[in-house]
Amino acid sequence: MADETQTPTTVIRNDPWYDSYAQRADAMRASEIRALFAVATRPDVVSLAGGMPYLDYLPFKELSQLIAKMLVDKGDQAWQYGSAQGDPHLREDVLQIMELEGIKDIQADDVVITNGSQNGLDLITRIMCDPGDVVLAEAPNYVGALGVFQSFQVDVVNVELDKDGLVPESFEEAIISQRKLGKKVKFLYTVPNFHNPAGVTMSVERRPRVLEIARKYHVLVVEDNPYGLLGFEGQTYPALRSMDAENVVYLSSFSKIIAPGMRIAWMVAPAGIRHKLILANEASILCPPNMSQMTISTYLDNFDWRKQINDYRGMYKERCETMDAALRTYLPYCSWHKPKGGFYIWLKIPEGLDSKAMLPRAITAKVAYVAGTGFYMDGQGSDHMRLSFCYPTPEQILEGVRRLSTVMDAERKTIELFGAGRRQGKGTDGGW
Amino acid sequence: MADETQTPTTVIRNDPWYDSYAQRADAMRASEIRALFAVATRPDVVSLAGGMPYLDYLPFKELSQLIAKMLVDKGDQAWQYGSAQGDPHLREDVLQIMELEGIKDIQADDVVITNGSQNGLDLITRIMCDPGDVVLAEAPNYVGALGVFQSFQVDVVNVELDKDGLVPESFEEAIISQRKLGKKVKFLYTVPNFHNPAGVTMSVERRPRVLEIARKYHVLVVEDNPYGLLGFEGQTYPALRSMDAENVVYLSSFSKIIAPGMRIAWMVAPAGIRHKLILANEASILCPPNMSQMTISTYLDNFDWRKQINDYRGMYKERCETMDAALRTYLPYCSWHKPKGGFYIWLKIPEGLDSKAMLPRAITAKVAYVAGTGFYMDGQGSDHMRLSFCYPTPEQILEGVRRLSTVMDAERKTIELFGAGRRQGKGTDGGW
Repeated sequence: MADETQTPTTVIRNDPWYDSYAQRADAMRASEIRALFAVATRPDVVSLAGGMPYLDYLPFKELSQLIAKMLVDKGDQAWQYGSAQGDPHLREDVLQIMELEGIKDIQADDVVITNGSQNGLDLITRIMCDPGDVVLAEAPNYVGALGVFQSFQVDVVNVELDKDGLVPESFEEAIISQRKLGKKVKFLYTVPNFHNPAGVTMSVERRPRVLEIARKYHVLVVEDNPYGLLGFEGQTYPALRSMDAENVVYLSSFSKIIAPGMRIAWMVAPAGIRHKLILANEASILCPPNMSQMTISTYLDNFDWRKQINDYRGMYKERCETMDAALRTYLPYCSWHKPKGGFYIWLKIPEGLDSKAMLPRAITAKVAYVAGTGFYMDGQGSDHMRLSFCYPTPEQILEGVRRLSTVMDAERKTIELFGAGRRQGKGTDGGW
Repeated sequence: MADETQTPTTVIRNDPWYDSYAQRADAMRASEIRALFAVATRPDVVSLAGGMPYLDYLPFKELSQLIAKMLVDKGDQAWQYGSAQGDPHLREDVLQIMELEGIKDIQADDVVITNGSQNGLDLITRIMCDPGDVVLAEAPNYVGALGVFQSFQVDVVNVELDKDGLVPESFEEAIISQRKLGKKVKFLYTVPNFHNPAGVTMSVERRPRVLEIARKYHVLVVEDNPYGLLGFEGQTYPALRSMDAENVVYLSSFSKIIAPGMRIAWMVAPAGIRHKLILANEASILCPPNMSQMTISTYLDNFDWRKQINDYRGMYKERCETMDAALRTYLPYCSWHKPKGGFYIWLKIPEGLDSKAMLPRAITAKVAYVAGTGFYMDGQGSDHMRLSFCYPTPEQILEGVRRLSTVMDAERKTIELFGAGRRQGKGTDGGW
């Protein structure tokens, strides 16, 4: 999933309906990433902010011709209403994709197609969470998930993340302490592979342990896996869902491995939950777009999508290497964990610097990033920033990091001269 | 909007998550229309049940070629993430459509694109309604809206409908009596043109009166208008939104006037509400599919869509005439109001008959309809059924009504012989 949509951040004054909104509407606000969009997309700014995939490896021309043919041959289906669960053909298609991460025990009937994984997160939260219920989530956390949880008035409780991903002990402690407080813990939300924004991957050793805890306390695990096939060496990790069919709701998406413009993702869930997801999907959007679903199937059925994903991997690997090298050259006083896949580097900046306060100066220097504060709900994160290497070219990445270094160098000089400004809070990470 | 999606209606037994769901999930259930889908789509059954548009008038071949060209020329946009408010080009496009119903004072910035109007109804309910809040709605009512209201635990309070549409006095009385009960009335939901299922249209005289009441009591009006351009004589009616910019949220859709397979609809709302709708859209689906939006724009920009809508009108008019004539021939003991546009006839059946109880026998006789009970939340409606003339050909309509008459004739004979079974409740209509 990503965070590239443009949302106006204007505050509306003198709204005559001010007193009429639902309580949940109070919790909705534009994320820091959206607020940044207008400036970050100016052509003279190098944006290391967005999470847009780079799509030039797609066979646009050939694919477009096949889509045209599909629309003529199967127009009566493509232009018409479809099933709330999603097109059976596409539900069959995704089985082969999930097999790559070890999910082999399922059928098309187990799958629900959603309007992007954002819609999937909305649906699972909608059916599981009353206001005040608790969702446990890695901190930092995917900003779009935080937006959904906020909009359903969920209490998000942080679970620790280190270089090997989610810390199982922290997960167990969070369950115990929340239950002591009388809270209902509805699920753990985790992005196990190439985490957004942290870049880390849950180690294979930890996975059974996380599931064991989930079973012990009867807590559902929501496994969000948009990046799993984008390991730079072609490596994959066994999905949590491949180890436990009863306690995991699995989400994946075509947005990062093919393209996001169709807004097509999918979920796999235990039968009772799946049944409610389909009802909720119907109430939410009636059905996912047939045209989009059949476009994806047309692509999967006619092209070597495994090779294309491999090309994507190679491209993202090169960009990650470029960013890692540039950081070592220009920002040696920062620290980061070099990711093994995905889109992001989570950069720890020197003590005394504040990524949120510094952002306007970075924009002035024509480079954009996302301040770490956007990935927490509790005000943490000013000691980090997220840098994306997915969309900019290697040249742009190099130039962007160079610009960033001029800003950070100047900040550090100011601090040396005048002493640190606002002290940053303690981060949750162990220095990775 | 429509109700053609397939939702499994299986009850899940021994669900280990049974105790974990949100309260709102308890209220979600498959509508009677969805439950019917599997049988109604059997090829030997004439379905007068669904609300699928008949799409053969679209220039599939030429349009598909232009879409292929658009996907190549603008692939970097069509395949990529987009704006949560919707594509600016499409938001500009819809202005000319709304002009046809008198909405002239708006700009592209006032428009929000949604993933079908179902998504729009979800968003407005999400931002306005806490559990227990009241929505006033015509009874009978569009089944998809009822599904949304249920899923947000809203109390739906019926407002009377007669042959001239919503009864203003009933609207005012409902506000007064609900406020006396201490209830928060969040909005009036109305389908003013060619109502689903009732087929009636709010008279032009009543429109200012409804708005006057809304202003007097500061109650928002949600105007849902998917059928407004499908008046059989090409007639249109001034949108409520054209008379009041501050108190109306307007929804319309391409699903009925072009095709539903892209799932693209739009909303217009006062600034404060619009701002929250965009945030909610982002939390719900991130952004509507660019590919779908640009497909609609490609169509609008390159084809004579006014002529195509006119062709649709002529086709639906013929089908409505056929159904009306068939009903007069085969079911003279029923009563109905002949609609002036749209997709549906709302048929009152003779006293003693129960449309819900009769349905299995109708399916056995190879004709499907929707029992009136699906359009109420309070158990009413067994004295009516909804017959759709949109999708079946005139020949199928004739045959469907004939089959229906054999079922109803037999029912009546049984009643004559053995006396009426279960007594039906009093309907809300005045016999139209």
